[in-house]
Amino acid sequence: MIVTVTLNPALDITHTVASLVPHSSHRVTDVAAQAGGKGVNVARVLHALGLPTVAVAFRGGLTGAAVAADLDRHGIAHRLVDTAGESRRTFTVVDLGSGDATVFNEAGPAVSGAEWQALREQVHRLLTGASVLVLSGSLPPGLPDTAYAQLAGAAARAGVPVILDAAGPPLRAGVAAGPDVIKPNASELAEATGLPDPLAAAEALRAAGARAVVASLGPAGLLAVTPDGTFRAEPPAPLAGNPTGAGDSVVAAIAAGIHTGTSWPHRLADAVALSTATVKAPRAGQFDADTYHRLAPRPAGSRTPTPHPS
Amino acid sequence: MIVTVTLNPALDITHTVASLVPHSSHRVTDVAAQAGGKGVNVARVLHALGLPTVAVAFRGGLTGAAVAADLDRHGIAHRLVDTAGESRRTFTVVDLGSGDATVFNEAGPAVSGAEWQALREQVHRLLTGASVLVLSGSLPPGLPDTAYAQLAGAAARAGVPVILDAAGPPLRAGVAAGPDVIKPNASELAEATGLPDPLAAAEALRAAGARAVVASLGPAGLLAVTPDGTFRAEPPAPLAGNPTGAGDSVVAAIAAGIHTGTSWPHRLADAVALSTATVKAPRAGQFDADTYHRLAPRPAGSRTPTPHPS
Repeated sequence: MIVTVTLNPALDITHTVASLVPHSSHRVTDVAAQAGGKGVNVARVLHALGLPTVAVAFRGGLTGAAVAADLDRHGIAHRLVDTAGESRRTFTVVDLGSGDATVFNEAGPAVSGAEWQALREQVHRLLTGASVLVLSGSLPPGLPDTAYAQLAGAAARAGVPVILDAAGPPLRAGVAAGPDVIKPNASELAEATGLPDPLAAAEALRAAGARAVVASLGPAGLLAVTPDGTFRAEPPAPLAGNPTGAGDSVVAAIAAGIHTGTSWPHRLADAVALSTATVKAPRAGQFDADTYHRLAPRPAGSRTPTPHPS
Repeated sequence: MIVTVTLNPALDITHTVASLVPHSSHRVTDVAAQAGGKGVNVARVLHALGLPTVAVAFRGGLTGAAVAADLDRHGIAHRLVDTAGESRRTFTVVDLGSGDATVFNEAGPAVSGAEWQALREQVHRLLTGASVLVLSGSLPPGLPDTAYAQLAGAAARAGVPVILDAAGPPLRAGVAAGPDVIKPNASELAEATGLPDPLAAAEALRAAGARAVVASLGPAGLLAVTPDGTFRAEPPAPLAGNPTGAGDSVVAAIAAGIHTGTSWPHRLADAVALSTATVKAPRAGQFDADTYHRLAPRPAGSRTPTPHPS
């Protein structure tokens, strides 16, 4: 069972309009709403891959009820902890002309000490029988920067591998707790270390406590600095599409690899295939199954490109 | 009791951002959500004025539940008829730099024949004891252009005065049913009649069946063509602020005037005061009480400007 934690989940609402014109009124031609937040996206991908997963998240008010209803509709198992504050929304406007997205992110409700305690207890209960703990996304107001470090410490005591996908102070505090994998992007790497070179920055974060660093470098693919060596994996060709959720699919592939016990080169090839397939799908947490099955790594003898030692 | 009908209500969500930049990501600094739709806004204003009112509307899904929860929170009486489809949202992004608003309107759920029948029965029950029936706003998909005409006909048979605030085919069909008042704006007047002159257009709509036409002409104020004469009423000075909901406040003032039995000049002075006070408030259905009480008509001897025969 892969447990994902989303401390600041959202109802992700997407509006399609013919063309975005600031300071005018728009008729929305298509509306979609789904449960979101990075850990929720990871759980959605794992569920689609047929892997056992459960999404832990806060839920507040009618927006939180809409998040829960969407998870139920898609059969994604969840353990939601109630908050007094209303869950947040994100609102994405897709411009049909250019295909570009304009995004509005609400901050989310402040979480109380008692609510945070209830969520930690929920995670502690799930650690028995968990194969991986995924900690993803921003923290809501009210939680300490050490929130992920606390959860990672509990997982370490239970012998459950941790993947942390965060930024800023929660990332730095989390690294000190010794997670098995962190997945920064290029700007998060540089911001966390002050080092512009991704390889040097990844090595610095390993020295600070992370056992493996998988850096997502956009079009340049993935750089992984792991106990088994350093690897790079690139997408097969330049990508056009919606990059939202591509990083969450990288995390899902790594979690799946830890769950099933594959090697780092296999995990990275899978991560590139899954994130490429996500860019080809319209929304975060979805992926194009044909693209994924075409690119996903196969047993020896297949012609799928595999990552090369760096 | 003033009954308002909103066939396409909405959850009106307002996001404040520092500056709207298309195709980028925005942190939302303030979030507000309230029940909306033109008839709901009218009920909100009437309730704030201390007048007995009940809002009739469709309600679907969790967005409809949020509409109901907001009405409950503000003590606005309602009779909501459930739809299988989810109620719509509107999103308004307010740019803190310029104060300008960018608006995204969802279309709303299709309404079935049985749902429409249930709403008509609800209105028929409320007509016993109603002083005014207010019909406001666009029709959702699935309803015939004669929807307002059907409700207006039922009100006429029950001896209840009708105010209709609609546009396009539902306005034209509604006028034929002989409503007591219609409230088009300048473009709706021209669109409904093909006549560019507001006075000529208003007279044409009276000839087509409306007993009185109150046209809202923006900065030029109100033009009323009534059985008691033709009047104009202007705001005291050019207005700065948010015009959203100003037309709904005009409707609320006319409904209040019919309910309490005031003269047309008094109703129009009240409508100008209330719509001016609405422009000074941040959101539809709200008004600045100080502005309203300063401008509202008083008994003879007061210095409040009153409308003049035109």
